[in-house]
Amino acid sequence: MNRRSALRNAGIASVLATGLAPAVHAQAAVRWRLASSFPKSLDTIYGGAEVFSKAVNALSAGRFEVVVHAAGALVPAFDVLDAVQSGTVEMAHTAPYYFYGRNQAFALGSAIPFGFNARQMNAWMLHGNGRRLMDDFYAGYNLLSFAGGNTGTQMGGWYLKEIRGVSDFKGMRMRLGGGLVGDVMTRMGAVALDMPGGEIYQALHQRSIDAAEWVGPYDDQKLGFNKVAPYYYYPGWWEGGLELDFFINRKAFAALPADLKAIVNAAASLAHADMLAKYDALNPNALKQLVMARTKVLPFPLPVLDAAFRAAMEVFAQNDTRSPEWKRIYADMRNFQRDQIFWFRFAEARFDSFMSAQRI
Amino acid sequence: MNRRSALRNAGIASVLATGLAPAVHAQAAVRWRLASSFPKSLDTIYGGAEVFSKAVNALSAGRFEVVVHAAGALVPAFDVLDAVQSGTVEMAHTAPYYFYGRNQAFALGSAIPFGFNARQMNAWMLHGNGRRLMDDFYAGYNLLSFAGGNTGTQMGGWYLKEIRGVSDFKGMRMRLGGGLVGDVMTRMGAVALDMPGGEIYQALHQRSIDAAEWVGPYDDQKLGFNKVAPYYYYPGWWEGGLELDFFINRKAFAALPADLKAIVNAAASLAHADMLAKYDALNPNALKQLVMARTKVLPFPLPVLDAAFRAAMEVFAQNDTRSPEWKRIYADMRNFQRDQIFWFRFAEARFDSFMSAQRI
Repeated sequence: MNRRSALRNAGIASVLATGLAPAVHAQAAVRWRLASSFPKSLDTIYGGAEVFSKAVNALSAGRFEVVVHAAGALVPAFDVLDAVQSGTVEMAHTAPYYFYGRNQAFALGSAIPFGFNARQMNAWMLHGNGRRLMDDFYAGYNLLSFAGGNTGTQMGGWYLKEIRGVSDFKGMRMRLGGGLVGDVMTRMGAVALDMPGGEIYQALHQRSIDAAEWVGPYDDQKLGFNKVAPYYYYPGWWEGGLELDFFINRKAFAALPADLKAIVNAAASLAHADMLAKYDALNPNALKQLVMARTKVLPFPLPVLDAAFRAAMEVFAQNDTRSPEWKRIYADMRNFQRDQIFWFRFAEARFDSFMSAQRI
Repeated sequence: MNRRSALRNAGIASVLATGLAPAVHAQAAVRWRLASSFPKSLDTIYGGAEVFSKAVNALSAGRFEVVVHAAGALVPAFDVLDAVQSGTVEMAHTAPYYFYGRNQAFALGSAIPFGFNARQMNAWMLHGNGRRLMDDFYAGYNLLSFAGGNTGTQMGGWYLKEIRGVSDFKGMRMRLGGGLVGDVMTRMGAVALDMPGGEIYQALHQRSIDAAEWVGPYDDQKLGFNKVAPYYYYPGWWEGGLELDFFINRKAFAALPADLKAIVNAAASLAHADMLAKYDALNPNALKQLVMARTKVLPFPLPVLDAAFRAAMEVFAQNDTRSPEWKRIYADMRNFQRDQIFWFRFAEARFDSFMSAQRI
């Protein structure tokens, strides 16, 4: 649909007929389908697409409608990339690292072990080369991307047994999201498994897995993992800040008039900011309840983090040889991250660490 | 201007005449004036209003224009509150804590010593009671607010002499932004002074002040403070995350049609996110250059932070007796902050502190 026909359909006929402004609830001139990789039960992440859809509607006075379909309703969770690429749907809401198996570079738009925290990711995406580099890469899949939420640093998952050292990961059957952390955990000796969130509880209960990571206190508590696994470790070093993205078919986007393009960008920005704020508002109470229910909330021992860091660096070096796109984007990301780590050591870290020691 | 007339003027006449969509550069139906409290030279913070204005224009296809006026062009920097309240201008871009002298509660919408970091402030504003409580208070000034940027944790300023302990603040003449940190510094024995950013260099050079705080590496380096003061301390414990706001006259906002109201909200959100990302992208290199130019970048000694924390708590208790609005909003803010500090101690702090120790 080109700009002229989009606007002509946007209730202009009724303006011509009545001389009045188009009604907000007029038939939308542009209707898109959004395929989410997430179930409705994951209200935090799935909800990002709903925030987006509502914002698009409000900003366009109803001229532009985006109908959100939960995972599996139109398209299976992990088929949304193909669906956007082929134009079956105009857009998706997903975690880019789900497509690590297609090309390692997808993970860089989402989260890599020992990568950015949420705020640093925003800096790279908005004022570094991040978004441009990712969209250059995504162009090979006929899509462009907008940030659509961040979880913040996730927790490190639920374990049947206490983690005393690196050797505890040897042979551990662990449910993990995303192929990159799977590569790193495999290098540490674990058996990386994937399964939908809804199957984790039963698998832990039946001891068919030894450990599982999902998201953080709010999402994890809803699935009741504390009832079947006593140990809850932090941090999720593979997700210092998981960015969710809106993937949009380039042809569909190009067909939008300029104002609706701007509306897509702004609505995504609203959804992006909303998700992290929602997580930060909801996680503290959930974590308190988990602690009160006698969950053992423990930091990974430092030797575990050190071993994971070394394993991650080995996987990254291997990825440099596997994917030229990974190599190019990763080099830029690392340079930017080096500066972020330098800068955050000063005012930000000192302020946060002082505050974390206060009783207020 | 009501919704109908706003839209009727929005190029609808040309639609009726030609049957074509309104041109993007048609005469704007709604024109607002924005008075900034900041000079153009402060491109980071002043730039937030420009990001907002461009977004409003793009999102509305030119139907809504917001003309940005730098501090002093229409209205002096600190008169923007009166100007919005009276309707002289429809909106302003400012730091709410500039109006602490009117009512202590203004500071809570901006930054208080040992308050939120940028991310926690977003959580309180978007998913806590923050925005609602502030807007209830701002209603007494005929205005409502939208977040319009955050600087992140600022640096603690430039000093002629090394800070060895709390006693070094006794009699220190220090340029400070905002009345609340002035109250706290006064309690620590300092002489709190205010002056525009453009006068700080000369005052330090002439030794008419002993210290001055401004923002952080990028903004501070541009003003050349390192050439006249050797010591640069961190963190700026009075600004763990300074939120800038858009103040909007309630009557002007109420007169907007629903889509333009949504556009104001979305454009503010874009400006808000952009500023922090811009600071994080620009500050590292500026700090590196300052270090290379032999600036002594040092953390405040812990006893100084402890004394400042105690002094701040005393001022806050006094504010409870001075302003019922402060008392009500502060109580809510503190409860929310207590939970944030609890939550951030786990995944987020552990991840960031591990990363800050890595060589990547």
